[in-house]
Amino acid sequence: MIHQTGPLDGQPAGKAGQGEFLARLAEICGPGNVLTGEDATGYGRDWRGQYPSQPLAVVRPASTDQVSAVLQLASASNIPVIPQGGNTGLVGGTQAEGGLVVSLARMNRIRSVDAKGRSAAVDAGVIVENLNTALAEYELRFPLMFGAQASAMIGGALSTNAGGANVLAHGMSRALCLGLEVVLPDGQVLDDMVDLRKNNTGFDLKQLFIGAEGTLGIITGAVLALTELPAAHAVALIATENFDAGLVVLNRLRRDFGNLVEAFEVMPRSYFDQMRRCDGPHASPLSGDPEVTILVELASSSPANCSLSADGSVPLVERLTYTLGACIEDGLMSDAVIAQTDQQRKDMWRLRELAPELSLDVRPVVAADVSVPLNAIGAFVSSPETILAAFDPDALIWMVGHLGDGNLHVVVSPSLKTAENMAHIRALIDAETVRCNGSFSAEHGIGVQKLATMAAHRNPLALDLMRRIKQAFDPLGIMNPGKVLPALQADGNHAVPRQDKPTDMTSSKGDKPKP
Amino acid sequence: MIHQTGPLDGQPAGKAGQGEFLARLAEICGPGNVLTGEDATGYGRDWRGQYPSQPLAVVRPASTDQVSAVLQLASASNIPVIPQGGNTGLVGGTQAEGGLVVSLARMNRIRSVDAKGRSAAVDAGVIVENLNTALAEYELRFPLMFGAQASAMIGGALSTNAGGANVLAHGMSRALCLGLEVVLPDGQVLDDMVDLRKNNTGFDLKQLFIGAEGTLGIITGAVLALTELPAAHAVALIATENFDAGLVVLNRLRRDFGNLVEAFEVMPRSYFDQMRRCDGPHASPLSGDPEVTILVELASSSPANCSLSADGSVPLVERLTYTLGACIEDGLMSDAVIAQTDQQRKDMWRLRELAPELSLDVRPVVAADVSVPLNAIGAFVSSPETILAAFDPDALIWMVGHLGDGNLHVVVSPSLKTAENMAHIRALIDAETVRCNGSFSAEHGIGVQKLATMAAHRNPLALDLMRRIKQAFDPLGIMNPGKVLPALQADGNHAVPRQDKPTDMTSSKGDKPKP
Repeated sequence: MIHQTGPLDGQPAGKAGQGEFLARLAEICGPGNVLTGEDATGYGRDWRGQYPSQPLAVVRPASTDQVSAVLQLASASNIPVIPQGGNTGLVGGTQAEGGLVVSLARMNRIRSVDAKGRSAAVDAGVIVENLNTALAEYELRFPLMFGAQASAMIGGALSTNAGGANVLAHGMSRALCLGLEVVLPDGQVLDDMVDLRKNNTGFDLKQLFIGAEGTLGIITGAVLALTELPAAHAVALIATENFDAGLVVLNRLRRDFGNLVEAFEVMPRSYFDQMRRCDGPHASPLSGDPEVTILVELASSSPANCSLSADGSVPLVERLTYTLGACIEDGLMSDAVIAQTDQQRKDMWRLRELAPELSLDVRPVVAADVSVPLNAIGAFVSSPETILAAFDPDALIWMVGHLGDGNLHVVVSPSLKTAENMAHIRALIDAETVRCNGSFSAEHGIGVQKLATMAAHRNPLALDLMRRIKQAFDPLGIMNPGKVLPALQADGNHAVPRQDKPTDMTSSKGDKPKP
Repeated sequence: MIHQTGPLDGQPAGKAGQGEFLARLAEICGPGNVLTGEDATGYGRDWRGQYPSQPLAVVRPASTDQVSAVLQLASASNIPVIPQGGNTGLVGGTQAEGGLVVSLARMNRIRSVDAKGRSAAVDAGVIVENLNTALAEYELRFPLMFGAQASAMIGGALSTNAGGANVLAHGMSRALCLGLEVVLPDGQVLDDMVDLRKNNTGFDLKQLFIGAEGTLGIITGAVLALTELPAAHAVALIATENFDAGLVVLNRLRRDFGNLVEAFEVMPRSYFDQMRRCDGPHASPLSGDPEVTILVELASSSPANCSLSADGSVPLVERLTYTLGACIEDGLMSDAVIAQTDQQRKDMWRLRELAPELSLDVRPVVAADVSVPLNAIGAFVSSPETILAAFDPDALIWMVGHLGDGNLHVVVSPSLKTAENMAHIRALIDAETVRCNGSFSAEHGIGVQKLATMAAHRNPLALDLMRRIKQAFDPLGIMNPGKVLPALQADGNHAVPRQDKPTDMTSSKGDKPKP
């Protein structure tokens, strides 16, 4: 059922118009699902509190039809629409000043699971972790693993093309999506909820909505590819001399284990230095404070790898031990510690998961999410220190990342924390990344945080093509305006976008950050 | 260097205008690389000879700059442009009546290989098999495997989002592309040749050009993801009672071997029936003429799987033997034959590779390339016979396909081979596929062959969005016109597209078909 709503005046609503707009929202979704004023404030804050805003209202539709009716109404009323899932983004992609937040939280139904075909159709508001909890009974999982998975929703994960630690084996969110349901800005519903592994029927439209951060429409449902639930893991910390040596070990592991290699997380010495500064647990359990510590995780569902041996050992762990031993013998790495119990595995992951906490005491920080070609990462890793040596020699710099994806999270705590200073440091890191043929946004997206970088560094022709697509899909410009695409001034140059607001560090969801 | 060309009159060129157009092409690419008349005729024929055409001319640029200059000229002259790689397509995607064929064949350089980072940057005209030959010295490969790989070029593989037998483990072409270089219709070059595993910087434009069949621009280069070269294979033919049982075996194999399971090719009894009719070798080596024969291939690069045991056996083969034995014991399948020598492996693959030859004696045939959800494939498989029982009870029907992808190639040799009859049979199969929530083009694309099906069955809103994209990228409509998107008549309804030409079976490349 599509709710019919007559057009309002097509202009931004005045006070009276707003009242009518809110009344119609309440007709569509029920009065209890339209929030305004203080009730809406929390939705206007990102969890790190860096992009505060006050929405005009928040609406919480319960179905695709309701989302469609809401967007028809918003189009007719010319009201900006900001889709929101778990609100775990890091780049201000749901900043909603004066706009209508459409929360997908009530659309949290797993529509169907095809256990034999290994796929699931879900609402956009299903929380990633909840999906995996539900899939466990089928011995399946949705193999996307990232820090915010206990709050992040499928729609947001797809809208930002979320990555994380398992991209190495399973790809980004994009690679895990078979079909999509999207409500367009005018309320039309694009139903491409196909459960197909091969489907070449014209331009692959879903690829546009994936990663568009809600600027082209609202994802309301998805068909996802699943994979088997691992029956055993093998986890190790290893020490290498540098990043390049780490990549050699990775290739050796992939030769031996294929895509059972699910994570290859890098923690360089700077990471443990910062851990010590903030009085963490916390040194690498590896001897001699190594230059590079890497967390390796293998996962398998094969009984041959996972069934306990007569001596109680796990064959997968034994195999990893053997391969890592050979790597040491061949001089590829200096040391390794292999988890023998589940607690040891958790302790190793805990070291990696501490990442967000390392900046708690020194907030605000500049957190860059960059990727570089694998053949450049060894050279890149020392560059933040080099480029900041003149500008801010006392800045604290540390890194952590996904080595196999060339993806590093570079964190800088400047000695002077003005917005200008921090923007300048971000610009220096971004420019260096681009100089190394890298990306200034590996997995977090653009939101409002990286609009200046988009304007400065993204290929102008690419930006032009993106604007053409935006115009073709959202001619009124109501979908998450001011995100992803830097504004063009009348003279054709880029407008200077709104900057980070590093001074407001209040959080809508408590102080514990998510990576 | 961009060659400057002044605009012609912007109208379809007359005889004199054509002369000037050809002269300018010769200035750009050299006179020897502009072909007309009979020299161009071969380029106007697809290899199966089903979509003959006479191009105005063929141009063979040697560089991206030359492609750019050619497209500037074509835009200024309003001449249709048809990109062509290896010309191995099956759906008439390079039909070129009166247009300019841009052959990428001279752009056949592997630009660079990053062995440690497992990527390669290549020209669009590199032949898939040649790339793999060159990569072998690095112990790497580009893991796309399909029948035409000895002629098909990377640009064409990406433009059609080619699939094939290894999609199960490695995904479609789309999943293997990291960066792209595209020349737009107006000659602008979009250089997104990034070598990045994670890159979320706005809409992922490359996804639009991949699978667009040259309707949005010409792919001139790509950065490709590589994977390790297998050191050993394990191949078996297995017999199952039906498709659903086959899927259960597939899931067991994936549990035990992860993505070492690279192929799971299904040959139902109808396939062997047709083999016998055309006097092939040719029965399943499995006992009792099984309902379903499946070719399983595992591939591994791990020494633990691949190094010969003391008794000369290959551990991977032993492991496969064990798992298949357990499947028989558990009643999941009835029989299996495992290749013990490389020759036996080749013989098994030969059974599958015979597919294109099965239609030689009964040409023309209706060849449908469909996919259905995995939970529907067991029911779908008998439907072509059912739906044709009334219309053409004497039609010969056989199938072959990629079971793990739900992808079946359905071949029908009708008793009456008129164009109308064949179009009707295609329409019946397509309609049934759509009824089963399937796709009428799994991996071959649309070209001109499936325009009627696109008009009849593709979501109208999806078609509308595709047209908006086409208009935004190619406002003059010069890029491969008449392909992929069915024409709209003035009344907003779809025009009836050109049909197959089943009576002309001459081939430009000899009689041996490619799958």
